[in-house]
Amino acid sequence: MSTRATAAPADQLTVRRSNLSLVLTHLRDAGPRSRARVASDTGLNKATVSSLVAELIDRGLVGEGEVQRVGNVGRPGQTVGLAPGGVVGVGVEVNADFVDVTALDLTHEVVLSRRHPADIRALGEQRSIELLVRCLDDAVVALGDSGCSVVGVTVAVPALVDSLRGRVALAPNLGWTGTALAEQLDTALAHHGIRVQLDNDANLGAIAEHAVGVARDVDDLVYLAGEVGVGCGVIVGGRLVRGASGFTGEIGHAPLNHRLEVCGCGRVGCWETQVGLGVLLTGCARGPDDPVLDTYADIDARLELVLARAADGDPDTLDTLERVGIALGLGASVLVNIVNPRALVLGGYFAALEHHLRPYVVHTLLERVVAPEAGGVEVRASQLGFTAASRGGAVVALQSVFADPTRVPVTA
Amino acid sequence: MSTRATAAPADQLTVRRSNLSLVLTHLRDAGPRSRARVASDTGLNKATVSSLVAELIDRGLVGEGEVQRVGNVGRPGQTVGLAPGGVVGVGVEVNADFVDVTALDLTHEVVLSRRHPADIRALGEQRSIELLVRCLDDAVVALGDSGCSVVGVTVAVPALVDSLRGRVALAPNLGWTGTALAEQLDTALAHHGIRVQLDNDANLGAIAEHAVGVARDVDDLVYLAGEVGVGCGVIVGGRLVRGASGFTGEIGHAPLNHRLEVCGCGRVGCWETQVGLGVLLTGCARGPDDPVLDTYADIDARLELVLARAADGDPDTLDTLERVGIALGLGASVLVNIVNPRALVLGGYFAALEHHLRPYVVHTLLERVVAPEAGGVEVRASQLGFTAASRGGAVVALQSVFADPTRVPVTA
Repeated sequence: MSTRATAAPADQLTVRRSNLSLVLTHLRDAGPRSRARVASDTGLNKATVSSLVAELIDRGLVGEGEVQRVGNVGRPGQTVGLAPGGVVGVGVEVNADFVDVTALDLTHEVVLSRRHPADIRALGEQRSIELLVRCLDDAVVALGDSGCSVVGVTVAVPALVDSLRGRVALAPNLGWTGTALAEQLDTALAHHGIRVQLDNDANLGAIAEHAVGVARDVDDLVYLAGEVGVGCGVIVGGRLVRGASGFTGEIGHAPLNHRLEVCGCGRVGCWETQVGLGVLLTGCARGPDDPVLDTYADIDARLELVLARAADGDPDTLDTLERVGIALGLGASVLVNIVNPRALVLGGYFAALEHHLRPYVVHTLLERVVAPEAGGVEVRASQLGFTAASRGGAVVALQSVFADPTRVPVTA
Repeated sequence: MSTRATAAPADQLTVRRSNLSLVLTHLRDAGPRSRARVASDTGLNKATVSSLVAELIDRGLVGEGEVQRVGNVGRPGQTVGLAPGGVVGVGVEVNADFVDVTALDLTHEVVLSRRHPADIRALGEQRSIELLVRCLDDAVVALGDSGCSVVGVTVAVPALVDSLRGRVALAPNLGWTGTALAEQLDTALAHHGIRVQLDNDANLGAIAEHAVGVARDVDDLVYLAGEVGVGCGVIVGGRLVRGASGFTGEIGHAPLNHRLEVCGCGRVGCWETQVGLGVLLTGCARGPDDPVLDTYADIDARLELVLARAADGDPDTLDTLERVGIALGLGASVLVNIVNPRALVLGGYFAALEHHLRPYVVHTLLERVVAPEAGGVEVRASQLGFTAASRGGAVVALQSVFADPTRVPVTA
């Protein structure tokens, strides 16, 4: 009896790289443990694991931890685990109202988080990119000062993003079209030796919720990002749905508004005209100079104002929350009917106002989803707030290290 | 250097079964070829391939074909290929207007196709199931008479289907709820020794288009089935999206009808109220006794009438086609915006009336899809007509044989 032919044998370097990745990823997914335990978990022999761990330590990716006794006999083993601090991935979200920078270390702990309020549309494309470069430059310098080295940057954009070419194809809420953003950032950050990749903000938000957020336990989820625009990221069977040409998740322009209001995109009746951040804030505002409309103030502070008014029983605010909540449920029901996710994660401002929006959303889902009990979907509020997309960017930047630990040089 | 640990070695029978599956599936995907070619394609050695092919011939799954010379030296080899006729899978669609039975052989050729017009809702659940049993019994007997043996039956239902438990959870357009259909059919067909599985009609339609239809060349597609209800099947990366609890593709009840008409499901504003078969036929009918409304007449014949009236320039018919076409494009745009498929396959009555509907669909997609050129989606009309779901059922029934050829007994 013959066995199935396999691929050509990998050369030694490829095998070594693949085994380094195996051990590093295992320490991420299974937690710190002794070398002996890593060997028995992975099927690699002990001498190999020792050599691999030594190399991962030399590259600053793994550190020694506490001494752990396995069973009652033999020498107690010292645990090894992912090195905190040190190597970090950076995610940056550029949105209509702010630029958010988040750095995560290998353990997915936040080592830097900065939000820069800004009216990106008013700034215009070129000055916005300059702002982005300044934010990134500052962050990389600050991270370097605290002993961290950046392995990669992923920029989240509320846009149709051509990830392969590093281009923003169309970002209606920023006013950008056909922007070669990755190239411009690569050039501006060349002195740091860092390469930039781009992705859609809702895609990265979904990745963040699945990797480090409230949807770590599920493999079928929809992430809905409430910002100036509304996008979604869909994960099916643990994988982000990217579509035939990378342009998925555009639920914001579904024709759900029966009053046919005109959207920022030029179409009429888009769902965004009912549930975008602008509609919410305008509905709660007491006039054009109301601080909730101040795009130079931090978005979380403005949402705190909305929450305070809701707590005071302000009728306009409560009416707006009801209207937005029902519309949010209607759009969410379309996604749940099509995709049947285990979790629907409300992100962005939807999460901040979850307490008020959730009852309407749940009620509308139960009403409009054809499957019994809305197909068993659980509505969860993101705990990452407006940092979800930038965290997802940092997660993606780190993924390259887990896939190939030799990307990080051996430290002197 | 150590190699990665692999799963426990398979026992000989498991390996044999897996190799039989490999050879049979390869002959399906790559076409007839010599044993020597199968050996070089798969990496199995020649003696093993000869033994495997002999067993597949004994099981009636493979037959010898023409003599083929490979290269200029050596003996010419006789080709082997999937055996036509013989082993067949059966798919049955039960829909509001008809029961359709299709049998496919291993080469995916149709060996039986029968449509039984019927008003399933009027018949009621029990008498409909009796009809289903009669149709299946007749088909299995007829197939047996012509020398075919049935390896499995898959029933397509326009419903929320709990495939695992073999239950129709909810079929609004049939008037069924919580029907233990697989069990009832298993019992009624026990004398044939055939087991029945259930699936949603649009899921099976999508599988058919991907396996034997107009979407064989793409791995990201949406199949939209225009029948009394409207469902969709979504294939991402070559795999059907089944969701967390199996209830995907329910686009028919998306709240897209701004006139808030009441749907058969009891909700208001469902997309089905604009694009379901009933709306189309009612719009084209010249009164309650119009033959297009005769549910006992074959659906294809009724659609021929619609086409004839459109060709004659009948204003009501042309208006209805325009209205339905635009609404079809609007709903399709929601799917295309979310999933970004390479192909959108119009099935059921949408395919029969494609010539009239397509211009409105394409125009509306270009208008409503955010990605440039509608994300590159191609609108394709099914060529399987109302047999798509039953063909998909037959494909699924056959899949069990490709996965494990030993399911088919060695013939005496």
